[in-house]
Amino acid sequence: MAEFLGTMLMILLGDGVVANVLLNDTKGNNSGWMVICTAWGFAVFVGVVVAGPYSGAHFNPAITIGLAIAGKFPWVNVLPYICAQMLGAATGAFLVWIMYFDHFKRTKDSASILAVFATGPAIRNYKVNLTSEVIGAFVLLLTIFYTTGGEITATKTPIGLGSVGALPVAILVVVIGLSLGGTTGYAINPCRDLGPRIMHAILPIPNKGSSDWAYSWVPVLGPVIGTVLAALLFLQLHP
Amino acid sequence: MAEFLGTMLMILLGDGVVANVLLNDTKGNNSGWMVICTAWGFAVFVGVVVAGPYSGAHFNPAITIGLAIAGKFPWVNVLPYICAQMLGAATGAFLVWIMYFDHFKRTKDSASILAVFATGPAIRNYKVNLTSEVIGAFVLLLTIFYTTGGEITATKTPIGLGSVGALPVAILVVVIGLSLGGTTGYAINPCRDLGPRIMHAILPIPNKGSSDWAYSWVPVLGPVIGTVLAALLFLQLHP
Amino acid sequence: MAEFLGTMLMILLGDGVVANVLLNDTKGNNSGWMVICTAWGFAVFVGVVVAGPYSGAHFNPAITIGLAIAGKFPWVNVLPYICAQMLGAATGAFLVWIMYFDHFKRTKDSASILAVFATGPAIRNYKVNLTSEVIGAFVLLLTIFYTTGGEITATKTPIGLGSVGALPVAILVVVIGLSLGGTTGYAINPCRDLGPRIMHAILPIPNKGSSDWAYSWVPVLGPVIGTVLAALLFLQLHP
Amino acid sequence: MAEFLGTMLMILLGDGVVANVLLNDTKGNNSGWMVICTAWGFAVFVGVVVAGPYSGAHFNPAITIGLAIAGKFPWVNVLPYICAQMLGAATGAFLVWIMYFDHFKRTKDSASILAVFATGPAIRNYKVNLTSEVIGAFVLLLTIFYTTGGEITATKTPIGLGSVGALPVAILVVVIGLSLGGTTGYAINPCRDLGPRIMHAILPIPNKGSSDWAYSWVPVLGPVIGTVLAALLFLQLHP
Repeated sequence: MAEFLGTMLMILLGDGVVANVLLNDTKGNNSGWMVICTAWGFAVFVGVVVAGPYSGAHFNPAITIGLAIAGKFPWVNVLPYICAQMLGAATGAFLVWIMYFDHFKRTKDSASILAVFATGPAIRNYKVNLTSEVIGAFVLLLTIFYTTGGEITATKTPIGLGSVGALPVAILVVVIGLSLGGTTGYAINPCRDLGPRIMHAILPIPNKGSSDWAYSWVPVLGPVIGTVLAALLFLQLHP
Repeated sequence: MAEFLGTMLMILLGDGVVANVLLNDTKGNNSGWMVICTAWGFAVFVGVVVAGPYSGAHFNPAITIGLAIAGKFPWVNVLPYICAQMLGAATGAFLVWIMYFDHFKRTKDSASILAVFATGPAIRNYKVNLTSEVIGAFVLLLTIFYTTGGEITATKTPIGLGSVGALPVAILVVVIGLSLGGTTGYAINPCRDLGPRIMHAILPIPNKGSSDWAYSWVPVLGPVIGTVLAALLFLQLHP
Repeated sequence: MAEFLGTMLMILLGDGVVANVLLNDTKGNNSGWMVICTAWGFAVFVGVVVAGPYSGAHFNPAITIGLAIAGKFPWVNVLPYICAQMLGAATGAFLVWIMYFDHFKRTKDSASILAVFATGPAIRNYKVNLTSEVIGAFVLLLTIFYTTGGEITATKTPIGLGSVGALPVAILVVVIGLSLGGTTGYAINPCRDLGPRIMHAILPIPNKGSSDWAYSWVPVLGPVIGTVLAALLFLQLHP
Repeated sequence: MAEFLGTMLMILLGDGVVANVLLNDTKGNNSGWMVICTAWGFAVFVGVVVAGPYSGAHFNPAITIGLAIAGKFPWVNVLPYICAQMLGAATGAFLVWIMYFDHFKRTKDSASILAVFATGPAIRNYKVNLTSEVIGAFVLLLTIFYTTGGEITATKTPIGLGSVGALPVAILVVVIGLSLGGTTGYAINPCRDLGPRIMHAILPIPNKGSSDWAYSWVPVLGPVIGTVLAALLFLQLHP
């Protein structure tokens, strides 16, 4: 439940900022990359504050799997977590659609509309795009391991909570966006991309165009490879 | 008294940044959405630092009511708090007018002048606008509940203070602005909107145009609905 | 000595960002108000980290006087502190001139050159400009009182230190700039303005134009009035 | 090993943001100085979080040498540290090339390509450029000394760790960039510049142009002079 609520808040705030920046006639229209990356980082912050003490605040199937591989999270909980994350992400995207309803109506550019929901490559090249997502998610989980001081226990709160304690993860997500988001828009999270993409396919948005399913496997597979590599490296370094 | 002073500081700094960005010939003219949202978040920070230990730093009738519903704040104090907040907001807006006096005189656009004081919809549609304010205030209060670790007591300092301890609320307000402020300008607070709007109606500002009373009920009702929903959900989850 | 070093660092970084934004052919040319306000806030942060444990990190004659009036700082130390601050500010401005030497040479606009050193009004109106500086400095010192939890003792470290502990003051200075800096460029500090202005008058900068001594009393008197008012209010509220 | 990993992450994220801002067709193209400086500061943050408890997180030969001079770091470890830093920096730059592979291909401007890897002067004047780097690195190390409260011990963790504890260094690097980076792009670190510059010389990047070896000694010598001066001053003040 906490994982659902936290993921929902993260996607509501994260997809919300993309809507604000890309859709027509919003107050933050065209306000730039800094706005997007700051808001995504802080969106994670809000989610961690809310869900952290209860679910550990993964919000990301790739993190859940990475933690399980590292032996920090019970495998039996992996599937329920992923379900909660997918539902939360889809619900968050739905709320963004409700909030920016009239702005979606006024936006003709189908690429902008899709971008509110799902990531896409700046230059389409699946091999390079996949590498981008691998590196981004690798940096994400590796640093999260160390954010907790290298002493992650198998409790349910691996990320290190309290309110100000959620700040390092927020900073991490901001800088991944600023620095590594220029190529694929940094999904670094399968449910962040797939959940809202499904909503994009379902919702009756005018001018919405294709949901680009051809690309959709990249932000699912890439992050998982990245977090698995991070988990293996961390196990190697700290057996 | 603390509630008055804190709300005054918040509105002085919050309406101040809008004046700086929107009025003619200021040093921060047209400096963008990031500037506005950062300053509003930090304005709340300053208010919380000053008033937090004394009044709990609500600054927002919707939060006061939400906390009362959740049983975290005595009902008998609700009305005095709202009065202090309204007076503080009006005083803060008055100080902004004093500070930016000559810039108001040089600004011909009445929409910009009103925007310094009160919020307004990017696309007027009362049902959708109201929903926007409901969602924004819901995220605000729900996260504030968890900022305190889910263990808000009935003391007079529910928000969790100390200076650095006020940072999570600031981050929360920044991201609500960046992500959810694109539609209605995120009042998420009845007194933040109504107090300055009254000053707009009263003050002898040249070219000021209408105070848009037709919209004024949205940023009053919406935030209250949002915080009531947040309080009910929190009570449900943590009885 | 700490007060000299801290003020020097603050002015080096603070005047430095103005040079970067306003002078010709710099890497940060024309990068905007957010850059200026963030850097000034963080410049104060750096100064406080360095000087805080040793001198209390005032860096500002108006703060020194305000603390003395509030009974938090011995009057006998006021003059030595102000001397150290003035010398530090002048030295910091000198270092900025050294660093941006070639950029000063390429800049023809004398208003931009002066702005690196000293503040000036967006719209010249001494009464309103003075009021701006009064309000800005009032917010500054009043919030600093509360940053320390309302329990400032008469020790030599009134501002509340440690590294992360310096963050609230940085946030405060950022938001004062963003919100209240649009009119006069927020000196809120006599030595921040007067020390570099003297360097502007002395240094052999091409195209430098007038040092605008006619305005120079505003950023000296205004901040002192503001901090005295803040000290009196604080004494009233917390006798 | 930690020093290698941390420096690699810092350069991956630091050079990454320059790639994102300067190379063609990225999502953050032309997003400005604030983006670059924020990301570099946060890149250091990530590196410190990961490597801090294990190596002290120098990431910078100039800091390693400065700490050794101040008697805070054993001279016998200086060379191994510098080797790890150089290798980490080169590896980080290599990963940026992999990630932004297609964007490098689409970028014709050889100055932008070089800027992803190495710093360069806004106005070429070796004496002034060297002074810039000296001042920047002086501020860096001097403040780092005080970030730890002036009580740096000779343990292997001189910078003061924990996750939130890494924030002051991040803020310091942000403000050095914003304020002092306008002239030479603030290398303030020999390996940050030289490691990636070597990769620039080696990698088969189309349109890459010269590696500007004529300038390469400035960001090596300048930072070392700056940190030595900071160490000597600190020793003088705190014998």
